[in-house]
Amino acid sequence: MDNSISSAALNSSQDACLQDLHKLLGSRFSMSESVREQHGRDESFHAPAPPEAVVFAESSEEVAEIVKICVKYKKPIIPFGTGTSLEGHVAALHGGVCLDVSGMNKVLEVNENDLDCRVQAGVTRKQLNQHLRNSGLFFPIDPGADASLGGMTATRASGTNAVRYGTMRENVLGLTVVTADGRIIRTGTRARKSSAGYDLTRLFVGSEGTLGIITEVQLRLYGVPEAISAAVCAFDSLEGAVNTSITTIQMGIPVARIELLDEVQIDAINHHAGFDYAVKPTLFFEFHGTESWVKEQAEMVKEISSEEGGSDFRWATREQERQKLWEARHNALYAALALRPGSKGWPTDVCVPISRLAECILETRRDIEESGLIVPMVGHVGDGNFHLVFLVDPENEAEELPLFQPLSDRLVERALRMGGTCTGEHGIGYGKIKYMEAEHGDSLELMRQIKKALDPENLMNPGKMIPL
Amino acid sequence: MDNSISSAALNSSQDACLQDLHKLLGSRFSMSESVREQHGRDESFHAPAPPEAVVFAESSEEVAEIVKICVKYKKPIIPFGTGTSLEGHVAALHGGVCLDVSGMNKVLEVNENDLDCRVQAGVTRKQLNQHLRNSGLFFPIDPGADASLGGMTATRASGTNAVRYGTMRENVLGLTVVTADGRIIRTGTRARKSSAGYDLTRLFVGSEGTLGIITEVQLRLYGVPEAISAAVCAFDSLEGAVNTSITTIQMGIPVARIELLDEVQIDAINHHAGFDYAVKPTLFFEFHGTESWVKEQAEMVKEISSEEGGSDFRWATREQERQKLWEARHNALYAALALRPGSKGWPTDVCVPISRLAECILETRRDIEESGLIVPMVGHVGDGNFHLVFLVDPENEAEELPLFQPLSDRLVERALRMGGTCTGEHGIGYGKIKYMEAEHGDSLELMRQIKKALDPENLMNPGKMIPL
Repeated sequence: MDNSISSAALNSSQDACLQDLHKLLGSRFSMSESVREQHGRDESFHAPAPPEAVVFAESSEEVAEIVKICVKYKKPIIPFGTGTSLEGHVAALHGGVCLDVSGMNKVLEVNENDLDCRVQAGVTRKQLNQHLRNSGLFFPIDPGADASLGGMTATRASGTNAVRYGTMRENVLGLTVVTADGRIIRTGTRARKSSAGYDLTRLFVGSEGTLGIITEVQLRLYGVPEAISAAVCAFDSLEGAVNTSITTIQMGIPVARIELLDEVQIDAINHHAGFDYAVKPTLFFEFHGTESWVKEQAEMVKEISSEEGGSDFRWATREQERQKLWEARHNALYAALALRPGSKGWPTDVCVPISRLAECILETRRDIEESGLIVPMVGHVGDGNFHLVFLVDPENEAEELPLFQPLSDRLVERALRMGGTCTGEHGIGYGKIKYMEAEHGDSLELMRQIKKALDPENLMNPGKMIPL
Repeated sequence: MDNSISSAALNSSQDACLQDLHKLLGSRFSMSESVREQHGRDESFHAPAPPEAVVFAESSEEVAEIVKICVKYKKPIIPFGTGTSLEGHVAALHGGVCLDVSGMNKVLEVNENDLDCRVQAGVTRKQLNQHLRNSGLFFPIDPGADASLGGMTATRASGTNAVRYGTMRENVLGLTVVTADGRIIRTGTRARKSSAGYDLTRLFVGSEGTLGIITEVQLRLYGVPEAISAAVCAFDSLEGAVNTSITTIQMGIPVARIELLDEVQIDAINHHAGFDYAVKPTLFFEFHGTESWVKEQAEMVKEISSEEGGSDFRWATREQERQKLWEARHNALYAALALRPGSKGWPTDVCVPISRLAECILETRRDIEESGLIVPMVGHVGDGNFHLVFLVDPENEAEELPLFQPLSDRLVERALRMGGTCTGEHGIGYGKIKYMEAEHGDSLELMRQIKKALDPENLMNPGKMIPL
């Protein structure tokens, strides 16, 4: 990374705020074009917007100093973890400073007896699990990317394990936050439950940097199960696959993972990761528990799937096989992109009540077929959550976006009509801000009141999530 | 209930607000002394404070009208469900109107396929489970009292099942709320997860009526397990019982209930409910699952408890036996009161990280022994949560409260020192408001900012939870 500063640019900018930040941070302040560009974009197709400068913080205290300087000069602040968000969360729409926390990458404590830990915001999910590898514990939340835990908290991320272990909402116990006026506060406690005061932790989970900067995260951990087994099951129809997952959830079988990949996505994965799965709608399962409890769960699910026209289970019990399987699933986005070389991905997701999932997926599939476009679908179907990836040719955006946009709009309209949400796990950023009114109605006004109360100058990631 | 109005009192009061409310509600407006007294007190020893009037609402729309009238005249509003809270939550400290929602007692919908339901705020937990009795579903959250689901939401209640099923925090999917300016909003969706916007649902869960009035609650439901069995196990030492529960949790065994009763409380229950349990520290367990999975869980826990000096398990597998067992546990407060006839209960609770639970309970037990007072202890020990009941002679409060108060203060100080919270499930009301600063430090200021933003006139249950 090029951290060097173009001093000429800085001096001539006459920007006292940037001068003060430079004085505070020295070589951890950058205005280089490449650094700024890299920090203005995420993994989505949404138009990037580079910040005026990037600062690299190393502690909560330093973040507080940075915020105080920015507030003094009314300069917007955009927090940045790994830049793997999907709705334009990090674009500097109103200029300002990008606050990169990737250097805050220490695991501060692991409390094995309490099944919890405390990490700095820049620690990534894989780094945490690597740190835990000899402890018998793991952290289950797994969005596709190796995102930072601060970013995952800010976007209320989830992933394949959420059906069993919950999302960041359920797994963040407490936070350290730098408020919009530069105070350092701690929310939550290490106790498993509390009735003492407003749930500030949950208010910051999913707030996308619009209320303050998350600098440390207290997380729940789980014991590595005694037994784990994974299986793959192909179906003749999309409906059979979806109904299998619905029945599994309705029966309360505590599957650890239940993932849908449609035939387009399976084909993509076969090519990208060298698998030879039948090119059919497919479920990937994982079961966690004791040896006998895992067997019992798997038997129950096998019975359901065979009634829905599922093939025999193809097992992956050895750790290496399982890892390959889930790596392929986590790389679904990259596999999808390879279906159309040179394309940019526009991934989108919605989430509906499980009883409406089959209807929502089948309507969506029909809508895609009628469009004639190639759009792979994957889903955390145990949660009622599924994703499409629109493959956009960046050389031809102006022509192609108008083809995909109506599909996206109808997808959201369909999910809301069925009692669902415009995003299950990707968040709002600026990519979905136009749907907030339709989803929230009058309660959006409360969100505005909270935003104004905690960030009266609108300096915290302005232009994201809350239409003001 | 005496709903009649003393018209003379009303006319002579010259209070235009009360006049307007009377006009709106007719016979569902009351200023009778008995109704006011009943609505100014909860089940705790905290000094009651009757409201100026009580109104009985029947719909969200009516609640909105009531709020608008009260706001116009700057009259405080105190919501009231069953009056079973424990920290003075319903006392009209600054006068005003008590808004009784017990008439809003309809189960609005049950979505069996989605395992959720929507109820009016006045529906009680037992009423809901009675309604669900033929559906194969149940709602697990069970504070001792048969509280209203609106009140349980407002106090972030939990109970014996929380170790497996979570608290109201995890089980409320969405709310209908009347805001402090009289708008009706809906929060959340019926989807299992969402990343769209601030988590208003969780902000209102546990807000104790200080931000708005909860009028409807969308709740998660669960399938009645195929197999349930309960067991009682006595220990020679309190330490053995506590360590058994700690190890059970640390091993990730998904017990549905794991409840501690110390020997004082067991003695109380023996007398009150006609049991003949050994007068020793005792754990009550319950296991949920398939037949074989329940057996396997029970075997694992039996092994742990026998290593900690536990007696043989005394099983209660027939439904009637189990019901008797848990009814006794739910009536622990009333059994405790019977230890000192004529006394008033001052129940209090704290919650600590599970690794500190043994230390916290043993220090507390020693503190009680040194005081020479009789103080039963019960605990949802799987969550690190335990309760004391101080038995206060109401004729002699002035002398006795100064004996109990230092025990209470030291209990909270101990829990906070161990990384816990001043209340795991009872809430703050005005009984624990003095501990908010010590628990939350600078984050209390954020709570104040939110309170001021959403209730600028401080009319929503003023004097509770947030010290202004």
